[in-house]
Amino acid sequence: MNILKKAVVLLSGGLDSAVTLFLAKDNGYECHCVVSEYGQRHKREIRHAELIAKKAGARLHKIKLSFPWNGSSLTDASVKLPSRRTIKEIKKGIPSTYVPARNSIFLSIAASLAETIGASAIFIGAHSEDSSGYPDCRVEYLEAFGNAVKLGTRAGIKKALKIEFPLADKTKKEIIELGQKLGVPFQHTWSCYEGKSEPCGVCDSCILRAKGFKEAGMKDPAIN
Amino acid sequence: MNILKKAVVLLSGGLDSAVTLFLAKDNGYECHCVVSEYGQRHKREIRHAELIAKKAGARLHKIKLSFPWNGSSLTDASVKLPSRRTIKEIKKGIPSTYVPARNSIFLSIAASLAETIGASAIFIGAHSEDSSGYPDCRVEYLEAFGNAVKLGTRAGIKKALKIEFPLADKTKKEIIELGQKLGVPFQHTWSCYEGKSEPCGVCDSCILRAKGFKEAGMKDPAIN
Repeated sequence: MNILKKAVVLLSGGLDSAVTLFLAKDNGYECHCVVSEYGQRHKREIRHAELIAKKAGARLHKIKLSFPWNGSSLTDASVKLPSRRTIKEIKKGIPSTYVPARNSIFLSIAASLAETIGASAIFIGAHSEDSSGYPDCRVEYLEAFGNAVKLGTRAGIKKALKIEFPLADKTKKEIIELGQKLGVPFQHTWSCYEGKSEPCGVCDSCILRAKGFKEAGMKDPAIN
Repeated sequence: MNILKKAVVLLSGGLDSAVTLFLAKDNGYECHCVVSEYGQRHKREIRHAELIAKKAGARLHKIKLSFPWNGSSLTDASVKLPSRRTIKEIKKGIPSTYVPARNSIFLSIAASLAETIGASAIFIGAHSEDSSGYPDCRVEYLEAFGNAVKLGTRAGIKKALKIEFPLADKTKKEIIELGQKLGVPFQHTWSCYEGKSEPCGVCDSCILRAKGFKEAGMKDPAIN
C-alpha cells in the first residue's frame, strides 16, 4: 500500500504560494507544484517558482496557456498598472490586475494533475484579508470551487481529493511570520507585477508585500 | 446601450455541443465558441468544430492546452479505448475515456472569455441521461461549478454571468430531435473517439450516437 500523501500546490513564484508549499511539505505531503505561463507581465516569476520548488525538493510542472483574448492590466502591457495606491484604495473593489477566472483555471488544472497522480489535496495560497480585492481569493469562492471538484471528479466522488487554502484568513504579516518559521527562502520569491529586473515598489503587490514585512518587523530579503 | 446578448459556447465538434450552439443562437445570443486541443486522440474534431461554427455564423476561439501528464485512454494512445460495450456497460461507472477535470478546465476558460467579452451566458452541452458515466456531465456538478463562477468572477458577482446546460436531462434521442428542428448540420459533426478517417462504430461514443439516431428514427447523415 502506498502510504505517501501527495499534494498538488499552485505555485506562482510569489510569497504566498511559497509559504503554502512549505506548509504542505511540513504537513507531510510529497509536493507536485504547478506554475503557469498565461501571458502575465511578470513572467520572470516562473524562474522564481523554479527556484522555490527546488529549495523545497518539490517537483514542478510548467503549463503554458495561450488565450486569444485579453482583459487585465496584468496580461496587457498596453494598460497601465495601478500605482502608488493606498492600502484602502487597493482593498476597495476589483483592480484592473484581476485576470478573469484565473484561479478557476489554475484549480481545474491542479485537479486534473491531482487525479492523474493520485494526490489527495490541492493547496492554493489565496487569501483576501490583506490583498487586492480579487473575488477568486475569497473563502466563499474557494469552498464553492471545492464543492464542484467534489462532484465533478472521480477522486472527488470517492472523497479522495480536497482543496486546502490554509492562508485564506491570514494577514500578510501572519503569512510572513509563518513562512519565517517554516524556513521559506523569501529572497527567492517575486511579487512585483511589473516583472522588471528589480521590484518597482509602487504596484499594489509591492505595496502589500512591504506592508507585511514592516508589520512583521522584518527586512524583506528580496530587496537590496 | 449594447442590447446584444453574447454567449460563450463550448464546442467540441460533436453532436451535443453543435445542438447547444444552434440552441443558443436560436435563443438570440451572439455566439463565441471555444474549442480546445488538449491531446485528444480525435483531434480531427477541431476541424468539425470549425465547420459547425461557420455554419452557425459564430466566432471560434481555439485553445491549446499542453499538460505534461496523462490519465485517460482519450489522451493516451497507448491505452486501448473501450470497445463494443453494451449500453448498460457504458452507463456503469466512470470509463477510461474520462479526462480528469476536463469540463472544469473548459468551463473556467469559457468563464474567462465570457468576462472578457461581456458575455452573459456560458453554454455547455453536457448531459448524463444517455451518455458515459462522466461525473463532470451531471447536473449536480454543473450547478456547483456555476455557483463557483457566481462567487469567483467579477461578472458572476454582478449576477451578469450564468452557466446554461440545456441538454442536461435530455436523452440522445431528444437531443437529436431538437437538433433536427434547429437545422443542425449533423453531417459535419464528429463523435468517434478514435479520430480516424471514418467513425469506428464500436467506441462508446459511436455506440451512443447510433442508439440516438436509431431511437429518433433517423439515418445518421455522417455515416455513409
